[in-house]
Parts: sequence; C-alpha cells; structure tokens
Amino acid sequence: MRKLFAELFGTFWLVFGGCGSALFAAGIPDLGIGFAGVALAFGLTVLTMAYAVGHISGGHFNPAVTIGLWISGRFNSKEIAPYILSQCVGAILAATFLYLILSGKEGFSIDATQAGAFASNGYDSFSPQNYAMVSAFIAEFVLTMFFIIIIIGATDKLANTKFAGLAIGLALTLIHLISIPITNTSVNPARSLSQALFVGGEPLMQLWLFWVAPILGALLGGLLYKNLLQDNK
Amino acid sequence: MRKLFAELFGTFWLVFGGCGSALFAAGIPDLGIGFAGVALAFGLTVLTMAYAVGHISGGHFNPAVTIGLWISGRFNSKEIAPYILSQCVGAILAATFLYLILSGKEGFSIDATQAGAFASNGYDSFSPQNYAMVSAFIAEFVLTMFFIIIIIGATDKLANTKFAGLAIGLALTLIHLISIPITNTSVNPARSLSQALFVGGEPLMQLWLFWVAPILGALLGGLLYKNLLQDNK
Amino acid sequence: MRKLFAELFGTFWLVFGGCGSALFAAGIPDLGIGFAGVALAFGLTVLTMAYAVGHISGGHFNPAVTIGLWISGRFNSKEIAPYILSQCVGAILAATFLYLILSGKEGFSIDATQAGAFASNGYDSFSPQNYAMVSAFIAEFVLTMFFIIIIIGATDKLANTKFAGLAIGLALTLIHLISIPITNTSVNPARSLSQALFVGGEPLMQLWLFWVAPILGALLGGLLYKNLLQDNK
Amino acid sequence: MRKLFAELFGTFWLVFGGCGSALFAAGIPDLGIGFAGVALAFGLTVLTMAYAVGHISGGHFNPAVTIGLWISGRFNSKEIAPYILSQCVGAILAATFLYLILSGKEGFSIDATQAGAFASNGYDSFSPQNYAMVSAFIAEFVLTMFFIIIIIGATDKLANTKFAGLAIGLALTLIHLISIPITNTSVNPARSLSQALFVGGEPLMQLWLFWVAPILGALLGGLLYKNLLQDNK
Repeated sequence: MRKLFAELFGTFWLVFGGCGSALFAAGIPDLGIGFAGVALAFGLTVLTMAYAVGHISGGHFNPAVTIGLWISGRFNSKEIAPYILSQCVGAILAATFLYLILSGKEGFSIDATQAGAFASNGYDSFSPQNYAMVSAFIAEFVLTMFFIIIIIGATDKLANTKFAGLAIGLALTLIHLISIPITNTSVNPARSLSQALFVGGEPLMQLWLFWVAPILGALLGGLLYKNLLQDNK
Repeated sequence: MRKLFAELFGTFWLVFGGCGSALFAAGIPDLGIGFAGVALAFGLTVLTMAYAVGHISGGHFNPAVTIGLWISGRFNSKEIAPYILSQCVGAILAATFLYLILSGKEGFSIDATQAGAFASNGYDSFSPQNYAMVSAFIAEFVLTMFFIIIIIGATDKLANTKFAGLAIGLALTLIHLISIPITNTSVNPARSLSQALFVGGEPLMQLWLFWVAPILGALLGGLLYKNLLQDNK
Repeated sequence: MRKLFAELFGTFWLVFGGCGSALFAAGIPDLGIGFAGVALAFGLTVLTMAYAVGHISGGHFNPAVTIGLWISGRFNSKEIAPYILSQCVGAILAATFLYLILSGKEGFSIDATQAGAFASNGYDSFSPQNYAMVSAFIAEFVLTMFFIIIIIGATDKLANTKFAGLAIGLALTLIHLISIPITNTSVNPARSLSQALFVGGEPLMQLWLFWVAPILGALLGGLLYKNLLQDNK
Repeated sequence: MRKLFAELFGTFWLVFGGCGSALFAAGIPDLGIGFAGVALAFGLTVLTMAYAVGHISGGHFNPAVTIGLWISGRFNSKEIAPYILSQCVGAILAATFLYLILSGKEGFSIDATQAGAFASNGYDSFSPQNYAMVSAFIAEFVLTMFFIIIIIGATDKLANTKFAGLAIGLALTLIHLISIPITNTSVNPARSLSQALFVGGEPLMQLWLFWVAPILGALLGGLLYKNLLQDNK
C-alpha cells in the first residue's frame, strides 16, 4: 500500500506541477516562464519525488516507465496493474485541483478546439506547432525509448546510482525542451489521460497515440538496454 | 544559539535572494529574468544554505517547515518558538536591506495598491493574475503540503539523504514556477510577513492567508507522510 | 561492442536532443526556449547519458573528447577509430530522425543559404551573428580545450569523480551559453558532420573548421592538464 | 605551481565564460540568453572548475574568496599574494581572448561611456539600472559576505562537502540573478579588474568599489561564520 500511495502522490505532483506551470505561468506576457520553464517544472516534479519517495516505490509516476522496467526484468508483472491504476488516479486528482484553482480566475474555460487546451497533448491541428500524426508518433516513441534507456542505465547496479534521480528528472526536462512544440509532450500516458478527460472532444479522440507510442517506445527501450547495453555476465 | 543564527542567516538569504531577484531583476525589458529566474533564485537560496548551514540547524528557513517537521516527529516542540522567531527576524532584516538598496534608485517607492508590491503576496486584486482567495488558499495549501512531503521524504533515514538539499531547494524552484502568478508564491509565512510589513495596506490585511494556508498544508503533509508513506517498522 | 552501442546511443541523443531542441523549440515567438534553452538541452543530453551509459563506454559522445582522452593517456589508441565511427553513425541517425519529424510540418525545407540551417555550424555569413572565421576558430579551439580540461580533471583519480557527469554535462551547457551566437557551437565534430551532411552547400564546405579547431583544442587541453595540472607523483 | 595554474585556468574560465556569455549572447533579440543566462553561465564556470581543479588548488578563482578563507583560518597567509596574482593574470588573459573574438565582428568597439561596456562593473550612471554608489556598495558587500559564508559552510568538515562545488557554483548564479541590474555583479575583484582595464575611463575609476566592498564583505563573512556558526569544539 505504501508503494501505491507513493506512486499516487508522485504522479499527482507530476501533473500538478508540470501541467500547472504550463496553465498558470507559461504564457504571461514578458514575465511568463515559456516552454523552457514548463520543461524545467516537469523535470523537477520527478527529480524531487524521486528523492522523496523513490525509496518507497521506485518512483515511476508513469505507466510507460512501469512497463519498460517490467520488460527489462526490473519489475514484477503482478504489480503492473496496481501501479498504473495509482498513477492514473493521482493524475486525475491533480487535474481536478488544477481545474478548481483555475475556476477562481475570471473568464476561465476550457476550449476543446484549441491546441494544448488544459495542457492536453495532440497532433495535427492539436499539435502546438501543427506537426502531423506521424511526426508526433515518432517523437513520442523515440523520446520514451531514450527515457527508459536513461532510467534503466542510471539505476544499473554498475552505475553511479545515487545520481539516478537527478539524471532521470533532468531527462524529462530535456524531453520537454525538445518536444513541447510537437505534441505538448507526453511520454507519460497517465499525464495525457488526466488532461484529455477534462478537455474531451478531439484531444480525447487523440489520446490513443499518447498511450500507444510511449508504451511501444518503453518496450523497445527496455529491450535495447537489456540486449545491447547491459553487462549480462 | 548557533542553530538560531543559522536559521536567521538562512531566512535572510531566502528573502534577500528570492524577493531581491524579483524586485531588482524580474521585469527589466528584454533582459529581465522573469518569473522563471525568480523561481530559480528562491530555490537556490535554500539549496545553497542547506549545504552551508543545514548541518547546523537542519535548514528550515520557514515557519511552516518547522511546524511540519514537528508534527511528523522530527523536531522538538520546545524549539519551535525560537526557530520561528529567528526566521522572522532574518526575513525582516533582509527586507530592510532590500529597501535600503532600492532607495538608491531614483523614483523608488512602494505602491501598496499594486499587486505584488515589494514582492508581497496576495489574492483577488492583489494576485499577480487576479486569482480569487479560494484559489490562492488551495494553491498555498497544496504546494506547502507537497513541500513538506518532499522535505520529510528526502531526509528519511531510508532515503538517499545527501541529495536532500538539492531536492528541497529545487522543490522550492518548482513551487515558484507553478504559483507566482497565483499568489506571488509564499509557502513561507516569514517571507510573507517581512514583505507585508513594508507594504502595509491591503497586502498586510491579506497576510493571514499566508500563515494559515501554508501551516495547515504543512501539518497535513507531515501527517500524510508519517501515516501513508513512512516505513514505521 | 557494448561500448560502441553506448557511444552510438549517446551521440544520437546529443544530436537529437541538442539540435532537435534548437530546430523544434528555440525560435517560437514568446514561448520559445531561445539559446539558453538549447544550451540547457545540449548539456542535459550529456549529463543524462553520462549517468546512463557512462559506466559502459566512458561516455565520450564526441570525437574530440576521445582524442583528448587519448593524448592525456586515458584512452587506448586502438579504440579511437571504432569510437569515432560509432559517434558519427549515431549523429547521422539522429539527424535522419530530426529530418523525418520536421517533414511532418507543413512548409519545412532546409535553406542552405541561411546561417544555422538545420542547426548547422558556420562562420562569416554562416555564423548566427556574423563572426569572422578567425573568431570562430579561436572560440571553438578555446572552448574545446577547456571542455577537455574539465573532463579530465573531473575524472582525475584525486577528484570527486561521482560528480563528473554533472560537471561535464553542465560544462557543455556553459559552452553553448557562450558561443551559439559565434558558430552555433560545435566543440564536437560528429555533431557538426551530421547537420552539415543534410544541409550541404556552404555549411558543408565550412565543416573542416569544426573538425580541426575542436580536435586541436582537445589535444592542447589534454597536454596542458597532463603537464601543468595533473599530480604525476 | 600546479595550484597557481589551477587558479589561473579557473579564473580565465570564469571571466571567459561569464563575461563572454554576457558579451556574445545576452542581448540578442528574441533568442538571447538575458541576465538569467549570464547568471547561469557565471555559476557554471565555478561549478565546472570546482569539480575539475578544486582538488588541486581549492578552487577560489576570486581574490575575495582567498581572503575570506584566510580570515576564517582555512588558508595560509603566505599563499595569498601568489593566488591573487594568478587569478588576476587568468582574468586579464580571458579578457584578451574575449577582445580578440569580438574583433572579428564588424562594427565592434568598446564605448567607455556606456554602463556595462565590455561587461564592466559600475555604479551611478554606470550601473545597468542606475543604482547609486551606496546601493552598489551594500549589494556587493552583502552578497560577497553570504558567498563566503556558503563557501566556508559547504566545505566545513561537518558538512556534506562533496556537494560544495554544486552549492558554491549555484550560489554565484543566484548572486547574479539578484544583482546584475545593480552593478553588473562583481563579488570578484579579479573579474572587475580585467574588464575595467580594457574599458578605461570612468569604469576604471570606479574599480576601487569592486575591490573594497567584496573584500570587506568576505572578511566579515569569514568572521561571522567562524564566530557565530562554526562548531568550535
């Protein structure tokens, strides 16, 4: 149970901090934090929670990470479903709190026809910079694949594992620096789910890509590390 | 006494560096550091002082943190009052130095009718982006709750505690990335007190929220960690 | 073989993340990450991969680094060629993926007459801010020299080597903060090669400088550290 | 001798990277790194060199730091003069290289009547935002005092000293986030000297403040740590 609470709190923090910084602070004229600030925020949610509760649950906060760790032999298949459920619950709770806070700002509403509404992910006309579906798929696939390679590598028993939380958190910052303009960056199905549920409409119809591409990328990343990089002696 | 000096110096640095960067550098056209730079500055005040004097006092620099550590059984109730007093003295001294430096700039004055004057916290028309009181309360409450969870978790005896100063400092950066537009970000009653005293007027009337919400959030955060996350065996 | 895959993946990530952030996210009005965001991205590619696969290959991801380590006696001459080949293959693969993703954006094309096209390096009218060839050469030479000194120093057996990945990654961020306006920053012949191949034209004609200056700088850096700084007792 | 080379290289890197990023990259429209990028660059020069050559010389790179360490009993008085000389030589060499690179840009010249010319420090009309001399003095004094407290505290034998390079480097970033608008930030007499020598005129006349205020601040910081914070048992 402690593990599931850790995943729930961690994923809450990821969505509340990452999507929250985007919604509250990214686009303010002159003083706003922009995409770079949002990228930093997403990474810091993982960095901070990795050091705070990583010792409890391993600090996944992301269904694709859970699956990537399983394929590489680092995670028990029995725990996959409860972990993913906790992550999704945490994400949806966070989105609820974001909605509550935004409701206290005059004129707030979610416009489901706009790219990136409520920090949702999307492609084609729902990509922040109008990238096509294939581009979005490749980006999410490749980025999640490398995210998993970094996670597994940085926690390899031969690695300097005390820095894993730093490397993994900053990897998520890097991923956002690259890809917010392409898909608003997911690499995390739970984070995509919670925002799409509140937006509905087309962004919800596009949600499939942000489950399929990250999970396939995570599976390949896990296999690549295990077969090409890991010292199996 | 060494502990109290450490808290005084640390909280001075938090207010001088965090509020100072906001007052001196945030809004300069084209070159200014913006909200992201201020967020980084606040976090770095805590990161730097945690490694500099954390070994002396524990490095709270924040009455809500002191109270959150107490409720979770990590801090002695007898030391609460002197710690908080030292923190408030340090904050007020820092605000005094900020005022002195700003006085050397032609045309400087504090306009108590303006949101965020002298880096003060506020809600409704004193919120940088006009968030209502309820939104401000939720934000300060939730953010302080997670701040305490991160602090207690990262210093848990089962955690990788050498990185606690990094994780805690960057947690404060993250919190500012999220919430400067909502309340100008407090999560620290001492930091709110010192700025409100110099501004007076409505911001001083709104000070109550920046004591109540962070302290309640810290209490809940401490209890949640202790009861749901901590390994009590 | 594991070493060569690690170099291939690492250099892929350096080009995909560093050049990718520049191409996708740097210049978007108001929200773009700017040169500072690109600088952070380049540094984080190395930081993350250093902790992920540094324990496998040493984490060079850069022909100049491989050569600098060799001259200072830290790397076997027999491995130079395969390392550099793996790095170049990784870089070219990454550029291919960047090209594929950008092809999904309407109106994308590479204009070989424009400074910095497809994140290529250049001097004179192909320098982002029109710096002459001599300035470009000095900058690439001095920056790579210091990059190597930092790499060798931070991994010296007398140093605090667990932080080497952090210091080396952030050194690359620093180098980009200084020199993107001068040459679009190389200090890495593989990164320059892959982008120049896709652009062709004048940027490809200027590629020589981004092999010669970094490699000469790396050689001098290696010799300076070994002869002036290293404790040879 | 190895110590003096380490100080020379380190201070070269501080001026080349910190002042260089300001000169090359700060003010470019839309994409420039601004004051926040320059602040990051200054801090990263110290962070990177602290891990690279800190094990050789202690990594001062700053006459005020050398003096502050001496007053607190951490540094031998016989070495003060050679250390400061090496630092000044390194700084002046770096300024020379910056001048050379800038000479390769059409229309480059140093205008000694402009605030911050060639990244020089100044007050009154030579302060970037027109802060008076008293404000400049207080800022440089207080910031250097805290810089020394952080340096001595983070390297205290009771502290978590492996993180000292990180904390000290990021302290310099923080100091720049606060005070670039006030004095263009010195806290380092060597860095002020090299830039003032190339500018001449009024900025050279104002150089005294950037030796006196940081050194006095360092002396007080060293004494405060030793007498109020250090565990002298």
